[in-house]
Formats: sequence, structure tokens, C-alpha cells
Amino acid sequence: MPEATVPAPSPARPGSTPSRAPLFLRACRREAVERTPVWIMRQAGRYLPEYQALRAKHDFLTSCRTPELACELTLQPVRRLGVDAAILFSDILIPLPGMGVPVEFRPAPVILGVVKGRADVVALRTPDAKEATPFVLDAVRLIRRELGGAVPLIGFAGAPFTMAAYLVEGGGSKSFAAWKGLLFSDPATAHLLLEKCAAVVASYLGEQVKAGAQAAMLFDTWAGILSPADFRTFALPYARRVFEAVASLGPAPEGGPPPRLYYGGETGGFLESCAEVGADVLGLDWRIGLDAARRRLGPGIALQGNLDPAVLLGPPALIRARTAAILREARSKEEGSGEGERPGSSPGHVFNLGHGILPVTPADHAQVLVDAVRELSTRSAP
Amino acid sequence: MPEATVPAPSPARPGSTPSRAPLFLRACRREAVERTPVWIMRQAGRYLPEYQALRAKHDFLTSCRTPELACELTLQPVRRLGVDAAILFSDILIPLPGMGVPVEFRPAPVILGVVKGRADVVALRTPDAKEATPFVLDAVRLIRRELGGAVPLIGFAGAPFTMAAYLVEGGGSKSFAAWKGLLFSDPATAHLLLEKCAAVVASYLGEQVKAGAQAAMLFDTWAGILSPADFRTFALPYARRVFEAVASLGPAPEGGPPPRLYYGGETGGFLESCAEVGADVLGLDWRIGLDAARRRLGPGIALQGNLDPAVLLGPPALIRARTAAILREARSKEEGSGEGERPGSSPGHVFNLGHGILPVTPADHAQVLVDAVRELSTRSAP
Repeated sequence: MPEATVPAPSPARPGSTPSRAPLFLRACRREAVERTPVWIMRQAGRYLPEYQALRAKHDFLTSCRTPELACELTLQPVRRLGVDAAILFSDILIPLPGMGVPVEFRPAPVILGVVKGRADVVALRTPDAKEATPFVLDAVRLIRRELGGAVPLIGFAGAPFTMAAYLVEGGGSKSFAAWKGLLFSDPATAHLLLEKCAAVVASYLGEQVKAGAQAAMLFDTWAGILSPADFRTFALPYARRVFEAVASLGPAPEGGPPPRLYYGGETGGFLESCAEVGADVLGLDWRIGLDAARRRLGPGIALQGNLDPAVLLGPPALIRARTAAILREARSKEEGSGEGERPGSSPGHVFNLGHGILPVTPADHAQVLVDAVRELSTRSAP
Repeated sequence: MPEATVPAPSPARPGSTPSRAPLFLRACRREAVERTPVWIMRQAGRYLPEYQALRAKHDFLTSCRTPELACELTLQPVRRLGVDAAILFSDILIPLPGMGVPVEFRPAPVILGVVKGRADVVALRTPDAKEATPFVLDAVRLIRRELGGAVPLIGFAGAPFTMAAYLVEGGGSKSFAAWKGLLFSDPATAHLLLEKCAAVVASYLGEQVKAGAQAAMLFDTWAGILSPADFRTFALPYARRVFEAVASLGPAPEGGPPPRLYYGGETGGFLESCAEVGADVLGLDWRIGLDAARRRLGPGIALQGNLDPAVLLGPPALIRARTAAILREARSKEEGSGEGERPGSSPGHVFNLGHGILPVTPADHAQVLVDAVRELSTRSAP
């Protein structure tokens, strides 16, 4: 089913001497880049007509569990948009059935067998990903083969805190009263649950890397429901444990350890703690400027983001102007301001949206964004 | 219906020479305080049995529109908990019907007559609050009389940006695609809508102050859906316009201008811009430490907050420990850290939750919080 027509690797700028690693991986490692790489969170999604066409024939869970379908959905945005990285088509709740908790998508996720107390936590299984989710690893191998080195493949998982939040809430929530009630009333049980989730996620993400994923991303979607102190208690240690497990796998066959990316929404109040998670790249939502984030974090970590996805609902001229503004913010030095600077690339920046692309986005507006990043970040200095 | 048994004004600490103004107002003005004042966002709410009893007989909108009911609901938490401020029982959507847009509560707000484009915006009315919502002003006068000076009364409104978001979305939203679509595709219409909302809110909040509200609070619940730049474009100028209108009313009869309080959720990434809104007090959610906020903002503004409401679902010992931690953070100096400091009061801090109290909160846990603030913030230095 997948077609082999994926873009050729980006040509290096004449005169530069980039390493052999793909652009995206070099940016994650804060190496020199000829332009800023770009990909889009949820780039394999409902805004694409070809995605809608395939999903009309196969439901979401079947699409995640069938390597050929997951491969095709992963490659669609790479072919259409020319993004600089592919990300596995999957969902952060895919490991739950292996833990003994069935999940349905109607289309919002519904967790059957919500975790209510210590007995439920004790009963959760912590299987090896090779046994519980072999279809994901098959998909990773197939996608790598079909990509043929054109762009790197990002593997991903939900961070333990976010996965545990889903297990206790049974879905999304406005106040997360059930999950926080457990955190604050029975922290021992909450920590046991987080440990189990960390074990499952470490296997799940580690096996994706062993199967060929060239970068490993954790989505801590709900990290921003916590105070800074509670983030350090309930989220940070478990995400760090997963990244340590991934790092312990050693360098990938093609050289260099797989970069680790961490995204936590609504964490602008405690970015400094997010930066301790052990990631090479910190994904930011649009609620903080890249310049302000860089001033607070220093140069030691790459930043990914952070256009408001809703900007893609505006006209192309606005999309280009906002893209330029973010490239300028990324270039601003630690103490300076991005005001007045020209766009251009900067080491340690991966362009992305600040959250997943909205389903109502016109697909050609996503193309405007990708083209704008490629063009504006290669503009040569005067 | 209201009973007159409200607490007596707080006694001053021996040896101090507090002004005649109530504790809460002095804290808002960063004057010396004998202890940290405390109130609770949504303190008149479903967690109170006496609230449930009254609401069983009268629906929400009737309760808001009947001065005697609004007065009784406003006084209930003052009587029970001994908080240091009362806040008008009302809702930020109460001004909408006067603009020509009916609202129902089922119980979530449903806006009948959603604003879809320029013609709808042009058709919106911008009535004077004395004509459109006289019942609110009657409630303010009645509450002031019933309070008898025990604690000050806070009047409030939704900030223009948040009110406009409701008008366009028709209710709450996850992505706010409709409202942001308008901001980014048709900013001229968005600004016209924001101007109309600002005019309505300025009259609505200003008339509350003229009727006797001793402080004026704007809730910009949805400010945190914006990027820092968009906050400065679409939210900040309109909230500032409202506060300027309130300030232009001059000192209240009892001396001193009414403090202006601004609360925007999920704004930890651009607090510095929030501080430009013209408020005396900036309300913070729990996603940022008071110490970090103080370092970023300097000493020139009072801070209100910021306990995670879900902490009240935990046991009393946890509530007390977390209360102490926030009092310590509030005491930490601009460059220092709060670690190891004792609790105690600090000028320019009003204790509150970081968001509204959850309906599932045990009422006696709210009492534990109020008592803990009163006790721990008066602990004398060694």
C-alpha cells in the first residue's frame, strides 16, 4: 500500500559541511543546520483528504494496529508536505490494552476499566512491548524501509503521568478531580501506578527505538494540570526514568543516540523543571515566546515549536508573517530580544506547531507553513 | 432572607498601626498587614450544603437576577468560613442578554444567538448597566447593607476577551477554533466585537463600583489560549480600557480607590504582559510558583493565589502543608528562594485558590484552608 515517492533528503547548502545525519536529527542535537527543520504535531490527521479517504475504510484502532495502514498514514504527510521528519501513526493509549485496560475510540478515547484504587493498580500488567504491541514495532520497521532514509522517523509514547491520568479519569477531563484526588489522598497508590506506567512506556518506547525509530518523543499532554512542585513529584521523575531507559540502549546503528523529545502543554510556569526531564529537545506550546523560553533555559537544550495551530486558519500572508516572527524569536540571543531581527535558521530549533494541527485546517495552509519555514529559514544574511 | 450574623472585622495585631481600611483592601494596596487575607474563587458554590439547599428552590439565572437571592448566596461563605472578602454572586455572562444575546444555563452556559460574523457584531447592543442589569446593582447595594462593613465586597465581570470568546464559541471550547478563526481571518471584526464588549464591561463593572463594590475584578478565563503577542493585541488593551474606566470614577466614598484585580488562567508564559493590564492585584493559577512570579514581576503589584483547588480533595494535613508552602513562597524575596523560610504574612499577597473551588470539595476542607491561612500567616517571627 505505501508508495515509495517520498522526498529526497534535503541538499546541503553549498559551502557548508553538514554531518551525514539528517537535518532534523542535527537540529535536535544543536549542530549546525543549513535551514530550520519542520514537522507538524498530528501531521497524519483529519485535515488531509487522503487521510479521510483511508480512515473511511478502516477505523482508528484498526489503523493503529495494522502495520501497512499505520505506515501509509505515517507517509501521507511526508509525501504531500515535504516535512523533515515522519512520526509514527499511533496513539498514546495504544499500550493500555496490554496492561489489561481496553480502550475504544468513539472517536474520543473511552477507557473501559477505569483505575479507581489500589487493587486496580495492583492488577495492572506491565508487559514487554514485544509481546503486547508487536504491531507497532512491525509498523516502525515497515515505515523505515518505505522511507528509505528520506527523513527520520520519530517514535513516541504518552509520558507516564499523562497515561496514568487517562487510566484514572477514563478520558479527558476539565478539572482532573479523580486523578488529582488520588495524587493528594493516596500518593502511595499514585506512585505505584506511575511506576507501572513508566515500566510499560520504557519498554514501549525503547522497543520502537530498537525497531528503528531514530528519535523518541514523550507527550506529557496533561503535565500542565500540575503545580511546579507537583510536577517535580509526580511527572518529572517518571518521564526521566523512561528517557534514561531509552538512553541506555546505546547509539543507533546509523550512529549517534536517538534524540529524546519532551512535550508538555501549558508548562510555561515551570519550563526549568521540564528541562530536567533528560530530553535533548523541549517542545513548547504557543503560550510562551521562544525568546523568553531561551532566556530562561539557556543554550543547553533544543527547542521545538511553537506556532498556535489556529494561525493556520488565517490567510497565507498571516501564516508567513507568524512563521517569520517565530524564526526571529528562535534567533534572539539569550539576553537580546528578537525584535527587528531577520528570520533565518538557528541551531537548536525545530519548527512545529505548539499543539496538534486542528482537523478544520485547510491542507494547503499546512503547505504554506512548511514552505514558509523552508524559505524564510534559509534566507541568507545581508 | 439574609441573616445579619456575619463575622466582626478582624482585630489588628497589638502594636501595629493598620489603617482603617479592611485587611483585604490593604493587602491589595500592598500596605502592611497583620496577617494574609484569604477568600476563595467560587466561594459561593455547589460545595456548600446551604447553597445546594437554596439552589434546589431557585434556578441559577433566577438566583443571579434576584437581589435577595444573590445577597444570600454571597453571604453564605462569609458566614460559614470567615473569609476576608465577599464576592458578588453572579456570572460573567450576565451582561449578554442586554447586548441582545440570550443565555441559558443547562447547567453549562449555552449562548443562544452565537456571533458568527460582522453583521452579528454590528447588531450587538452596548447598553448602560443601569438599564440592562439593574438587578445586579440592587444586589450590590443590598449586600453592602447586609455586610455592615464586616468584610469588603468584590464586584466582578468577565474581561472583554473572554466575553467575546463566549459570544463567538457559544460556550466553552477545547480549541476555540471559531473565535481564533475570527481573530486571525477577520481581525477588524474581532476588534469591533472586543470594543463593544469593553464598553459593556466598563459600564457593568463601573456601575457595580458606584453601587458600592469596594474592589473590581476582571476574570479573563480564556486569556491563556493566546500567544504572548496575541494577548497583547486582543486581550490586554481591552482589559486595560475597562480598568481605566473604573479608575476614572475616582475614590470610593470610604476613601481610597477600589483595587482592581485581574485573573487570567494559564498565563504563566507571559505574566509580564498581564501585569500591564492596570491591575493592583494579579491573580495567578497554580501552574507557577509565587516566588517565581515575584522574581519576574518585581515588587510593584500584589499577587493573589494560588493553591491548586484539587489540594482541597486531600486530607487536612496536606491542605495545611500546602498552605504553608504558598505562604513561604509569597514571603521569598525577589532574588531569594522560599525554601526553608517559615510561613507568615507578606505585604502584597492575597491568599486564594488558583481557580474556582471544585464542586466535589468537602465544605469542611475549605474551612481547614481558611483557618490555616489565618493561623500560619500570623505566626510571629522567632
